[in-house]
Amino acid sequence: MIRIGIVGVGKIARDQHIPAIAADTALELVAVASHGPADVGVPAFGSLEAMLEQGPDLDAIALCTPPQARRETARIALRAGKHVLLEKPPGATVGEVGDLSALAAKQGVTLFAAWHSRFAAGVPAARAWLTGRSIRSVDIQWREDVRHWHPGQGWIWEAGGLGVFDPGINALSILTEIMPQAVFVTGAHLQIPENVQSPSAAQLALSTLDGVTITADFDFLQTGPQTWDITVVADDGTLRLSHGGAVVEIDGKPVVQATAAEYPALYARFTQLIRSGRSEADSRPLALVADALLIGTRERVAAFIE
Amino acid sequence: MIRIGIVGVGKIARDQHIPAIAADTALELVAVASHGPADVGVPAFGSLEAMLEQGPDLDAIALCTPPQARRETARIALRAGKHVLLEKPPGATVGEVGDLSALAAKQGVTLFAAWHSRFAAGVPAARAWLTGRSIRSVDIQWREDVRHWHPGQGWIWEAGGLGVFDPGINALSILTEIMPQAVFVTGAHLQIPENVQSPSAAQLALSTLDGVTITADFDFLQTGPQTWDITVVADDGTLRLSHGGAVVEIDGKPVVQATAAEYPALYARFTQLIRSGRSEADSRPLALVADALLIGTRERVAAFIE
Repeated sequence: MIRIGIVGVGKIARDQHIPAIAADTALELVAVASHGPADVGVPAFGSLEAMLEQGPDLDAIALCTPPQARRETARIALRAGKHVLLEKPPGATVGEVGDLSALAAKQGVTLFAAWHSRFAAGVPAARAWLTGRSIRSVDIQWREDVRHWHPGQGWIWEAGGLGVFDPGINALSILTEIMPQAVFVTGAHLQIPENVQSPSAAQLALSTLDGVTITADFDFLQTGPQTWDITVVADDGTLRLSHGGAVVEIDGKPVVQATAAEYPALYARFTQLIRSGRSEADSRPLALVADALLIGTRERVAAFIE
Repeated sequence: MIRIGIVGVGKIARDQHIPAIAADTALELVAVASHGPADVGVPAFGSLEAMLEQGPDLDAIALCTPPQARRETARIALRAGKHVLLEKPPGATVGEVGDLSALAAKQGVTLFAAWHSRFAAGVPAARAWLTGRSIRSVDIQWREDVRHWHPGQGWIWEAGGLGVFDPGINALSILTEIMPQAVFVTGAHLQIPENVQSPSAAQLALSTLDGVTITADFDFLQTGPQTWDITVVADDGTLRLSHGGAVVEIDGKPVVQATAAEYPALYARFTQLIRSGRSEADSRPLALVADALLIGTRERVAAFIE
């Protein structure tokens, strides 16, 4: 049994981490650390340090805090010799992910940068279909309503909060998982509300060494139907990944149709990594966002009022 | 004799590349490609493609164009089987440098991402001094007058032009060369003139796995004395690298005092890489800038009027 503590009892911990851990017979949630109230049925502490000093024995820690403060918390957990799961994005910068990997290796513990969208049911089928195919183009449409999915999460608009890239990076985590070739950004245009630091919309152009045309349209202000779709056109067919990766159609025929259940598979991977003494800390999706911010043209748009 | 063509006959090509090639007996400048006039004593063409098709035989190509269009030009040169030298920064994005490295490897030619400041006379002495020392802190002061050093270079203010990071990345290229440990960004504040896309000033905080405190102050609007200094405080002494790396003092005593001669050493390295069939394409300095843009808070400041 792997004894887990959670740091940061916000929306994602309550909606996903706690139920996934509860449903997994290999895992047990034994404590949480949170600045706010955390009535989740296990001992709660005001900080990670307090949980480590005064709480029950722990093997692993899942960090569900906003990315801006991820590094310091992760370093404390790794230095204490705990296996660490990082919610996405794994850090505020690409560089700090490398730093945490080095520290985990030194400590002999597992570091898992968990990109939850990669655990969507359709992703393995999409990856298999793309392998060996001649790919012409990829189009990503990732549009959601921030007011519905991120109520009161002011950190998302601050510097390092990623804005629309917070959901958009999920699409990029799938893209980098299913594409047989390395992907890089060739152009970006960003819309930034005049009262915040991070973009509310972004349009990206990406490519590969073979010159595949990849476009991405990210929007954080989408009302009405929500869209998390990736369409891949190959010489001999079209694959469509929708509902965030839970559904796959090939040439219009359903191949995978699942309800969203990313976190149970994500925790199964964490368990597997711990048991085999390995780490997995891929920072490519975040590197694509950093590159988009590096070359993106910025346009000021109307203030965002939640 | 390595026959070289230059693409982009602007300020840096005229000030540095052409004289350095002329002074090197292993190299010969045989052609240039330029959008503008290029009366430099060798056949001139309107584009890289024209130079490749109609010009004299070439072994290597030095790309001295602004970074925004670097990738396409580099790909054409590598696909033509030429060794390629990239002026700094090596690309508009970190990802495209990896892409170009992969293409160079596939083509069996040398790719050299040339960070000219690393060839400043004092850099090897600084690197040697830091090795094995217990470093407490590093402070970078890199302040210059854009109107003096970059007259009419509007591209520097556009998206992907880096603004003050265009000189600042020189300091970061030295930092990553002399520090024994990996460096990463922990905080950034950026000042962006209201009429352009790129910052005119930036203050960075960086660190290492051992927790060394690194600060950097970049300013593009410095009039009067110009400053390109790096100060490293170790447990047992202080090293000061000044004049962009040409001068080194240890505990106040001069150790290296050279006039700037970065490009001859840079071209000697290019020759060595070509002869040994190796590539060198380090993108770490650009990755630090991308990370600074990822987490940096942005402040709008007065318009920049050249």
